[in-house]
Amino acid sequence: MLKALAIDIGGTKIYNTIVNELGEIKSEVEKRSTPKTFEEIKKVLSEIIKKYENDADVIAIATAGAVNNENTGVIGSTGNIAEGYSNLDFQSLSKKRVFVENDANAAAWAEHIIGASKNCADSIMLTLGTGVGGGIIVNNKLLKGKNGAAGEMHFKMYPDKRRLCTCGAYDCFEAYASGTGLKKTAIEIIGNPNVTTYDVINEVNAVLAHPEKSIGILKTEILQAASEDKYVKAFLKWQDDILAGCIGLANIFDTCMIVLSGSMAEFVDTEYIENELNKEIVTTYTKVRKATAGNYSGMIGAALLSLGVGI
Amino acid sequence: MLKALAIDIGGTKIYNTIVNELGEIKSEVEKRSTPKTFEEIKKVLSEIIKKYENDADVIAIATAGAVNNENTGVIGSTGNIAEGYSNLDFQSLSKKRVFVENDANAAAWAEHIIGASKNCADSIMLTLGTGVGGGIIVNNKLLKGKNGAAGEMHFKMYPDKRRLCTCGAYDCFEAYASGTGLKKTAIEIIGNPNVTTYDVINEVNAVLAHPEKSIGILKTEILQAASEDKYVKAFLKWQDDILAGCIGLANIFDTCMIVLSGSMAEFVDTEYIENELNKEIVTTYTKVRKATAGNYSGMIGAALLSLGVGI
Repeated sequence: MLKALAIDIGGTKIYNTIVNELGEIKSEVEKRSTPKTFEEIKKVLSEIIKKYENDADVIAIATAGAVNNENTGVIGSTGNIAEGYSNLDFQSLSKKRVFVENDANAAAWAEHIIGASKNCADSIMLTLGTGVGGGIIVNNKLLKGKNGAAGEMHFKMYPDKRRLCTCGAYDCFEAYASGTGLKKTAIEIIGNPNVTTYDVINEVNAVLAHPEKSIGILKTEILQAASEDKYVKAFLKWQDDILAGCIGLANIFDTCMIVLSGSMAEFVDTEYIENELNKEIVTTYTKVRKATAGNYSGMIGAALLSLGVGI
Repeated sequence: MLKALAIDIGGTKIYNTIVNELGEIKSEVEKRSTPKTFEEIKKVLSEIIKKYENDADVIAIATAGAVNNENTGVIGSTGNIAEGYSNLDFQSLSKKRVFVENDANAAAWAEHIIGASKNCADSIMLTLGTGVGGGIIVNNKLLKGKNGAAGEMHFKMYPDKRRLCTCGAYDCFEAYASGTGLKKTAIEIIGNPNVTTYDVINEVNAVLAHPEKSIGILKTEILQAASEDKYVKAFLKWQDDILAGCIGLANIFDTCMIVLSGSMAEFVDTEYIENELNKEIVTTYTKVRKATAGNYSGMIGAALLSLGVGI
């Protein structure tokens, strides 16, 4: 069975492991901090590849930043990774073939092949973490766009400049639907600049654990009953902002399924989102589910793509 | 040369003509009012087809409503057309092959083959009229989605329920970027419920004709200098709402070009939209242009698709 040396290069961590063509992880997952300079990143990658390339048929890299349509490198600037990274010649690091894909695109492919959306020709994965990532699959192919940068979830939630996004523009979906977005929404609603994402989640969990309210009632309904609590109110606003974005995507794409992944996805009531979304859209019934391909879906998806699985 | 009998079925008018595989209109364009009942629509279509089917190799229908992925009929309800229309068996109307596509998708294909976006593998056409239509081309193919309904420009401009859209939901792009949207924006800003889209356009044209302001200055810059005029202010807000929507689409799709068509497109300063959009997006340079395939692009596009041109 064919295998890939899979490497996930994020802004803070670099992971690597061996993944086979069934999407199974076949060796211990190694974790390193992402170095601050381009040269050090290159050195770390070289070490990993030298050590493991003989165990694999191909090197599969999932990386932060937009990846070109040839799957050989990163285009333009990539935000939170070292300057010069976009000039990295990945192929020069190995004698085996090196395949590169954007991390969110790779994770979307893992969901498409072995995860939540595996029977869907059309799906959209949203990664809700510190920021928001996106991977879009149209007719069993990754949507890449003219230069490979498609799937950026920077569409506007307001047209009149309220909240600055990390991208430098205002009011992108990312600035509302991310963990950082929840924090900002909570600060606005609670009026305390020191409130954190965890404070909100803790308070919401406390309300959800209320025994009298939880019998046979959906999670969001319990929260709606307690919406005078400002923490709950902030949480519900955050979730409704995610809903608003999903409605737009469902109308634009008539997709089969929206998959929510990332550290913040576990807090979202996907049943509520799916119900409300389908009341509003003008396209056809769209499912909303949580990701199931696991924490290493970026590496798994990059491995599957590099091995041609599903292509 | 192969030819199609092209028919455009809209909510108010039905047009027909003969179109060849170069996208050229080869006979007089006939125009009829769209009847109010399903049976009458069917009768009108039968008459047109009986009269002209021998002059064509295929019947190409551009229609209001979402069209299935088999291009044989309309799915679900279609808003402003007679009840029962979605049950119409188009193929039963002719002995020749009958091909059906959504009117905005067809028009986008016309732009893609013979119009503004003809050298782009990826483009998005927005039809700005009484409502807003959309047609999206990804890697030289129409984006249809799981059931053929993709391209609906009903993504939210606000997440907090301000303006009702014709689709029954709130704050869709259509409710802001359409001609009706301009009227509503003008009513809000001017504070007069009787103001019309034409009043706004007339006032804006009067400002643009001011000789002292028009030398060597972009259209939008002239208007910005006169933005204390509430009509001008409403117009600029409308144009900026279109810009906001285009920014989201450019980030989601990394498309080559956004093409603006429809009766309201002529009033938009596409140079301004293109400049501002490219200052904000995180994907790659995206052009914004006006449509060039003309008034009958729906029929032309349906004809080209039915004849397999570009597929």
